[in-house]
Amino acid sequence: MRATTLHAPGDIRVSEVPDPTIEAPTDAIVRVTAGCICGSDLWPYRGENDITPGHTIGHECVGIVEEVGADVTSFRPGDFVVVPFDHCDNTCAHCRAGIQSACVNLGMTTSGQAEYARVTQAEGSLVKTDGVPDAALVPSLLALSDVMPTGWHAAVAAGVRRGGTAVVVGDGAVGLCGVLAASTMGAEKVIVMSRHAPRQELARAFGATHVVAERGREGGAIVKEITGGVGADSVLECVGTDASMKTAFAVARPGSTVGFVGVPHGVELPVRTMFAKNVGLAGGMAPVRRYLPELLELVLNGRIDPGKVFDLTLPLAEVAEGYRAMDERRAIKVLIEP
Amino acid sequence: MRATTLHAPGDIRVSEVPDPTIEAPTDAIVRVTAGCICGSDLWPYRGENDITPGHTIGHECVGIVEEVGADVTSFRPGDFVVVPFDHCDNTCAHCRAGIQSACVNLGMTTSGQAEYARVTQAEGSLVKTDGVPDAALVPSLLALSDVMPTGWHAAVAAGVRRGGTAVVVGDGAVGLCGVLAASTMGAEKVIVMSRHAPRQELARAFGATHVVAERGREGGAIVKEITGGVGADSVLECVGTDASMKTAFAVARPGSTVGFVGVPHGVELPVRTMFAKNVGLAGGMAPVRRYLPELLELVLNGRIDPGKVFDLTLPLAEVAEGYRAMDERRAIKVLIEP
Repeated sequence: MRATTLHAPGDIRVSEVPDPTIEAPTDAIVRVTAGCICGSDLWPYRGENDITPGHTIGHECVGIVEEVGADVTSFRPGDFVVVPFDHCDNTCAHCRAGIQSACVNLGMTTSGQAEYARVTQAEGSLVKTDGVPDAALVPSLLALSDVMPTGWHAAVAAGVRRGGTAVVVGDGAVGLCGVLAASTMGAEKVIVMSRHAPRQELARAFGATHVVAERGREGGAIVKEITGGVGADSVLECVGTDASMKTAFAVARPGSTVGFVGVPHGVELPVRTMFAKNVGLAGGMAPVRRYLPELLELVLNGRIDPGKVFDLTLPLAEVAEGYRAMDERRAIKVLIEP
Repeated sequence: MRATTLHAPGDIRVSEVPDPTIEAPTDAIVRVTAGCICGSDLWPYRGENDITPGHTIGHECVGIVEEVGADVTSFRPGDFVVVPFDHCDNTCAHCRAGIQSACVNLGMTTSGQAEYARVTQAEGSLVKTDGVPDAALVPSLLALSDVMPTGWHAAVAAGVRRGGTAVVVGDGAVGLCGVLAASTMGAEKVIVMSRHAPRQELARAFGATHVVAERGREGGAIVKEITGGVGADSVLECVGTDASMKTAFAVARPGSTVGFVGVPHGVELPVRTMFAKNVGLAGGMAPVRRYLPELLELVLNGRIDPGKVFDLTLPLAEVAEGYRAMDERRAIKVLIEP
């Protein structure tokens, strides 16, 4: 099959690789009808994570079930499915506690920007739609494989509540989905820290009530003013850098929680500040499967449209341009059509 | 008055210092009938915190109101009061949110191991008993000024719940109060990590169901076995060192929370582990006043007896021996009688 492969920092190619196959009775093979590029794909692309040259990349996709293993009984070839980037059996103690991202049989999509992807633990992981959905719905369904549940997880971890104030640090696709999550959960004030006009605009469309373009101390002072001098009830940290984490703790009110979902890179948590202010930290890798039924319903009944984060669609052959566009922040998030 | 003063690492004295006076209309002066030494007093005593030579030390006490400022209307001379180590107005936004330790008018007891102590924000901070209590109750009432509410806060922050499993890292007085808190809250398994026989014994008296003497990986493996292979539902970190924090995260189940109340010293939080396991951190300086009404009732009706943490009582003149006894772990916690 044709698949996106990473060979060295900045060296993204479309290569011919072996088709994935059923390796265990719990597997399924999905023909990818739409995949996309994640902010976290940029870490190895930029050389900030170790890579194995030539490996496939991409962990977000939706598609049509092509083949299932013997233990997969709820799905059959032809089903349209959302593929959570983190595969889980949905039966172990961690899954039952809602932390499917720590499943004892955890797996990952490894060829989401390709023609086919193998899903381990297909029975526990996949969620299907009734019939093949309208093309117009595909971007929002694709967003459910990672970016939207990840923003949602930040809001859950941060304890967003109806009538409260929420600050979202980060205006990438995850941060924007965090805005959508916080507004959907009923936060009265949703403050996004962003200084890029197109992202500010989308944040407002997703329910942001305030946009703060300033950063650091200045940004923190403005947020404090908006929150009546006390700080935010909930903070969603959606970047993963030391600077964004420090901003998150600076704007959090005493007793609140920073919900974090950005893979941490070079973060030193300000433990003394956390202690003095009683500001907690919660979150981590999103348990996508936990939120899928609820989020799928919100998408299907038109209450949320997270697919708006895709502002560039490219054929698989042009995936390298997709990486460049996201790396240079010319695109918020790129949808790839195999 | 006579007061405990710290002059250099290890140099604890009883000195004659000026009596505290009403400096603001919100102040009260309390004649200390019992004070005590806190594990956190050992940091400056050991030279691990900066000090001002000759300053008074001690932040835990109970006593009799001697004098009140003009704005203090609920207390009068002669009242027996518990003095939270962290003084608060109990009316600001942070107090109303239950984080009195971040009160905008935060104050601290600074001469708890002395004859008199000044209480700022007396109206919001103090809690009185009906009449002067029996001498037998005094240790447990004294424990309410810091150590018991601090252990309780760890349990609240860690989300201890009825029927769950709780691990307490640390067998100091705070850790032991954490055990008492977790068992009072109905945790089914309360596992304390301790290798000192007298502390193990007190932990069992406070409701510990399991004692793990091993540390590090070995201790973690035993806790994992006790918790059915999944890890603890709640972890109370009651020390504040890097090693104790790492142990806490190692035994926490995915999706759980480490509640921390030990003033952090040299702690580097394992943010990558926290992310991968979705284990949160919450807690900090205890909002003593928040818990006082509930804890006072538990003490008065005999349901908890946190005063058992005091295994040595000394007159003020011998306070230096009290510091030595705690520093050398010969005593769990030392009560000082002025």
